[in-house]
Amino acid sequence: MGLRLHLGRALYLIVLGPAGSGKTTLTAAFGGWLSEAQEARVAYVNLDPGADVLPYKPDVDAREYVTVEELMREKGLGPNGALVESMQVLYERRGELLERISQLEADVVLVDTPGQMELFLFHDAGPAFSRELAKRGAAVALVLFDSSLARSPSHFATLRLMSLVVQLRLDVPTVAALNKGDLEAARRAAAWAKDPGLLLSDLEGEQGVISELAAKLVEVMNAYSVAARIPLVSAKERWGFQELYDLLHEVWCACGDLT
Amino acid sequence: MGLRLHLGRALYLIVLGPAGSGKTTLTAAFGGWLSEAQEARVAYVNLDPGADVLPYKPDVDAREYVTVEELMREKGLGPNGALVESMQVLYERRGELLERISQLEADVVLVDTPGQMELFLFHDAGPAFSRELAKRGAAVALVLFDSSLARSPSHFATLRLMSLVVQLRLDVPTVAALNKGDLEAARRAAAWAKDPGLLLSDLEGEQGVISELAAKLVEVMNAYSVAARIPLVSAKERWGFQELYDLLHEVWCACGDLT
Repeated sequence: MGLRLHLGRALYLIVLGPAGSGKTTLTAAFGGWLSEAQEARVAYVNLDPGADVLPYKPDVDAREYVTVEELMREKGLGPNGALVESMQVLYERRGELLERISQLEADVVLVDTPGQMELFLFHDAGPAFSRELAKRGAAVALVLFDSSLARSPSHFATLRLMSLVVQLRLDVPTVAALNKGDLEAARRAAAWAKDPGLLLSDLEGEQGVISELAAKLVEVMNAYSVAARIPLVSAKERWGFQELYDLLHEVWCACGDLT
Repeated sequence: MGLRLHLGRALYLIVLGPAGSGKTTLTAAFGGWLSEAQEARVAYVNLDPGADVLPYKPDVDAREYVTVEELMREKGLGPNGALVESMQVLYERRGELLERISQLEADVVLVDTPGQMELFLFHDAGPAFSRELAKRGAAVALVLFDSSLARSPSHFATLRLMSLVVQLRLDVPTVAALNKGDLEAARRAAAWAKDPGLLLSDLEGEQGVISELAAKLVEVMNAYSVAARIPLVSAKERWGFQELYDLLHEVWCACGDLT
């Protein structure tokens, strides 16, 4: 049941999400599940130079090259400047990092990204890493959102738009998931995620031109099957992983129906 | 020519943008221009607890309540945790902050936001502040992007999608602008910004299903006139402000054609 047998090359799963979405917790928990339930050989890469304590042991770690705290301390930068500068360092040393990543003996390489998603996404570093990983194996982006961001239909629609932004910036297939699936907000969100028609009608029930526009955009995205299915997971309580795995599998082998 | 005469109440201009887009520089430069060229009474609010040195003198400053550095030092948090916690403090003290902001004697209140845009956008703090400001005056979001983010048609399209995400999250009219208009990438971007038809045909020239989808989405956004015009500015060299002002004026008085 090794993934490598099926795939013939490593899968690089780039885990992104806004601050607090739980991407680091998910990286550890999903990695554990992949090795236990799927008997996959799993490796971990940390590309967050601002990470504090990690719940997994990274095989390649950005913090060997630079940390946000040392830039603040040694270069006298404020937190904003240090975050951007840390990405610049990773960008410049990407050759070395990518070389080490591509030598990992693994079926799935989980790539954890900076706490602040935009740091990776809107710096040249993110697209450069994803492009290079896609040359070395299969690369898929997983965007994780906190379910509490999906309290209203239009807010839920923004998560689908954000997934598309990730896909366009990183130029790799992108899957979204809702974390903290035990939250109250998650139940509603799960219904929207499962039934695009319900989301559309709820969007139309919201006031204003902007909800109407969001509904139109969701309709177009549905037609193209982009990030249409959004599984609910709990990184902390470790559930929802089979559904997430099935979706990822469809995406990376391009063998399934993504609607 | 005082704006207050025209508007009858203050305009709260919420300035957002990814790290390094130049929003703080723009806040200072555009504020100066508004007071000189438009004879507006301008006030400044800093909502970035991670700000280092500011090029303007804030009338209300989040750093009186909390700073990222002190959370790191005193609570032993890493940079990621401290950033999120600092937003939580602002969220909890928003009553006090909003009270002080609404008492500013100004025609335009420029509200500078955290270095990391998503911190404001994907925390309850951002929507709470924008909603409350919209009750106290006219509120408009200005999303600033570095022109170098718009090197390809699909990357340019992501900026329009991001503007829409901002509008849906903050629930206020949103205008986008491209900063660092002197960069090489800006010339092409300016052409796409001015001519949605050109953007569409260039998107269609890009490979893949995802560009096709981006083209469809841009078409829908054009039909709804959302963030269709994207002025080019240079916060550093202080140009493009008249065009930006005209666009903002159309949006907040809802008296113009936004196409």
